[in-house]
Formats: sequence, C-alpha cells, structure tokens
Amino acid sequence: MSESKKTVFVVGLGPGGGQFLTVQAQSALQQAEVLCGYTVYIDLVRPLYPEKECYTTGMTREIDRCRWALDTARAGRDVALVCSGDAGVYGMASPLLELAEEYPDVNVEVVPGLTAALSGGAVLGAPLAHDFCVISLSDRLTPWEVIEKRLACAAQGDFALALYNPSSKGRPDYLRRAVDILLANGKAPDTLCGSVRNIGREGQEKHILTLSQLRDTEVDMFTTVFVGNAATRALSGRMVTPRGYRR
Amino acid sequence: MSESKKTVFVVGLGPGGGQFLTVQAQSALQQAEVLCGYTVYIDLVRPLYPEKECYTTGMTREIDRCRWALDTARAGRDVALVCSGDAGVYGMASPLLELAEEYPDVNVEVVPGLTAALSGGAVLGAPLAHDFCVISLSDRLTPWEVIEKRLACAAQGDFALALYNPSSKGRPDYLRRAVDILLANGKAPDTLCGSVRNIGREGQEKHILTLSQLRDTEVDMFTTVFVGNAATRALSGRMVTPRGYRR
Repeated sequence: MSESKKTVFVVGLGPGGGQFLTVQAQSALQQAEVLCGYTVYIDLVRPLYPEKECYTTGMTREIDRCRWALDTARAGRDVALVCSGDAGVYGMASPLLELAEEYPDVNVEVVPGLTAALSGGAVLGAPLAHDFCVISLSDRLTPWEVIEKRLACAAQGDFALALYNPSSKGRPDYLRRAVDILLANGKAPDTLCGSVRNIGREGQEKHILTLSQLRDTEVDMFTTVFVGNAATRALSGRMVTPRGYRR
Repeated sequence: MSESKKTVFVVGLGPGGGQFLTVQAQSALQQAEVLCGYTVYIDLVRPLYPEKECYTTGMTREIDRCRWALDTARAGRDVALVCSGDAGVYGMASPLLELAEEYPDVNVEVVPGLTAALSGGAVLGAPLAHDFCVISLSDRLTPWEVIEKRLACAAQGDFALALYNPSSKGRPDYLRRAVDILLANGKAPDTLCGSVRNIGREGQEKHILTLSQLRDTEVDMFTTVFVGNAATRALSGRMVTPRGYRR
C-alpha cells in the first residue's frame, strides 16, 4: 500500500528561470507527472519541461491549487506544486500541509528554493550578512497593525530587513508608511537601503539609496526592498552589511 | 583590458552535498579554475569537481581566504570561494566585498545558496511561512548585548525565528539564555519549536518540541533551531506556521 502512495512536491523555483533551480528541485519537477501553480510561475518552468501536463490557476486561488494537487496525487499521480522563491517563505508549503491533514494517503515533500531575500541580496551585494528580518507589507492575510508592530520591533533591534510585497495598486503608500515606522523607531535617515526589481528575470534593476530617499521612492509589486542595519555601507555600488561589530 | 578581468565567485553551496546546488552555482564552480574555502565545505564539493585545484584553510581564517581568492584572480585565474548555506547570510560575500575594494581589477560575483533557515525549514515543514527573523547566537563577532536585544525585539514582534549557531563548546548555555529572553518578552512557553541537525547530510535529525522543552534541550553547533510565532502548529509531525492571521 505505502509503496503506491503518491507525492505532492511543493517546489520553490527561486526568482526566475532555470538557473536558480536546485538539483533537488529539478529532480522533483522531473519526477512529477503534472505541474501545478499560478500561471506566471508555471510559465517559468514550462519551457524546461515541455512534455509535462500543467494545471494553472489565478493568483488568489491558492487553496484550489492545493486541493487539486492533493486530489491528483490521491488519484495516482505525482504532482509538483510550484512557488516562486522558496516553498515555505510566504509560499504554498504552509497551506498545502494544512490541507494535507485530510489526505493521509498522500506524501508531501517540501523542496526549498531561493527566496527573494537571498536572490535579491546577491544582486545588491551582501545586505543580509548579519541578523535580519523578512517582513511582508501585504495586509491581505495579516492585519496592518501586526505589520506595523513588526516593523517597529525590527527597527528597535537594528535588524537588516528584507521587505516583500512593498507595494501594489491598492496600497501605493505602504512603503512610505513602513519607512516612517522604521524612522520613528530608531533607524537613521541615512541608513543604507536597496531595491531589486525583476530579480533574475529580464529587465532586472537595482538601486542603492538612503532610507530617507526610499521614503519618497515608488516601487511596484515586482520589487524587493532591503534596509540595512547601522553598519551597512555602500562599497563600489554594492550594499554590504558587515558580519559583525568587532574586528 | 576588461575582457581579461578575472572573477571571484562567492558561492553558496546550500546545506550539504550536490543536490542543493543551483544551476548558477554549478556553472560558477565549473567555470572556476580553483576552488577555495573552509576544509569542510571544500570536502562537500570536491567529489563533484575532482579535477579542480583546491585551496583550503581552517575555520577562522576567512580574511586569508578572501585575500588568497582576490590575489589568485588578479594573477589570472577565476576562483570560486565557497560557503555553506548562502553566500551572503553570515557568509563570505561581505568580507570579500570589503576586501575587494583594494582589487578594482577583479570582478566579484555573488551566487546565492540555500541558507539553513530555508533548507532546515523544509525538513520541518513550513516554520517560516510568515514574517521571520534570523539571529545568530554566536558572540564571536557580535556583542552578546546586541544578540539579547534582538531576541527581545523578535519576541515582542511575535516573529517566527531561525537561530543559527545555537551552541558551541565554549558556550553550552547560550540557547537556554536565548530562550529565557524570548520567554521574558512575550513568547508563550508552549510556542512550537523545532530543531534540525546535519541538514541535508548523513545523519539528518529533526525534532519538534515546545519552547519550554527547548530551554532544557542540548543542541550542538551542527543544529539550526526554529521558534514559531503564536499561530505555529504541529501538523502530522511537521511544524507549520500559517501564512496569515485572517482566514
């Protein structure tokens, strides 16, 4: 019986095309008989596996995708549920594992991938070389007061920061509001910051600027924002956080 | 002139053997004429590139390795400086970029890799599916008071946490001290926690336990510790943090 159990692989693709896939992710995609995910992410891997059947849904249909993947595995086929970035960090592993409680006859395997904090960090230099926080500014699933509190705590602790979902059409001023909270809680206006747009994709752009400049910068939903700690410096156009305070 | 510039690739290997390498990391290791790094990490990749020359040094000789890599590139050979995990997160990208200021005639390319927060997180389930902090408990380069302050802020913000370097021979009680700070700053004693030892390597072990149990648990330097947020739950032996607070 257990030998016939099928698997849903929840696979982090990293930021873009094939070059960010791990060997483990390639194996999972290869083993899967069907690929499942948000249309934009499936389009990133479809060219690598043109023979595979694909099931795509719109952006907010996460639970449908999880259900479909588990039902398909139960019916006898290995499935790869793909996520951009990591499978875990704001990814599909969490809702899939919740729903998988109803599917004891299906295996779930989480395959990690490069989240934007790492892939975007590499583009900028080494912004997260010391203790850091990752915070999403999206209030779709999280009350804004919780986000505000976390921004305040991150600033008070002088963490370096990666900010995900810094903006969207419905909330163009969220990054400014976030910067104001960081400034009010101890981050200096000249704290070094960076942004990376379209990480690992065509049209990749990076910018290095101060926190006070960041406050008046418009970014879009394809951008990841980095905020340094007190020791972060610009070196030859790169954003570099020292690994420690002692030399 | 610029066509003859040589490159130091600073390459994150991920947690263990070849299966965690990205395609980009494989390309960098292949292009490099010589691999350079801490002995233990070179041993992870040497079997994959048996024809490559390797230069290895002991654990605390990071600056020597950076200098050697830059000198070697200046002398005309591409070098891969390898790190376990990510190149940036507590990795060699930061000291290399600092030293590279003295080597304008050498390119540096940062190649990201799976840091233990991601690779260990995948072993446990999805512990970092929402906002999280990464904190190292090593006070080799950071004053302990800074570490304490960050632990307190992380607890106050109800972040999920990945704790790196939770213990070593010289500081067997650091994890207990860290847990006490988390408890004193708002983390509940029954907060779900996890640990992963030897991520992606032979003898990989995982444990799921509460924060109060974690306080009395001994871990070693090969272990990464995860602390949930208030919503983190155990599901079929996995540690799962929901992606949000609203349903």
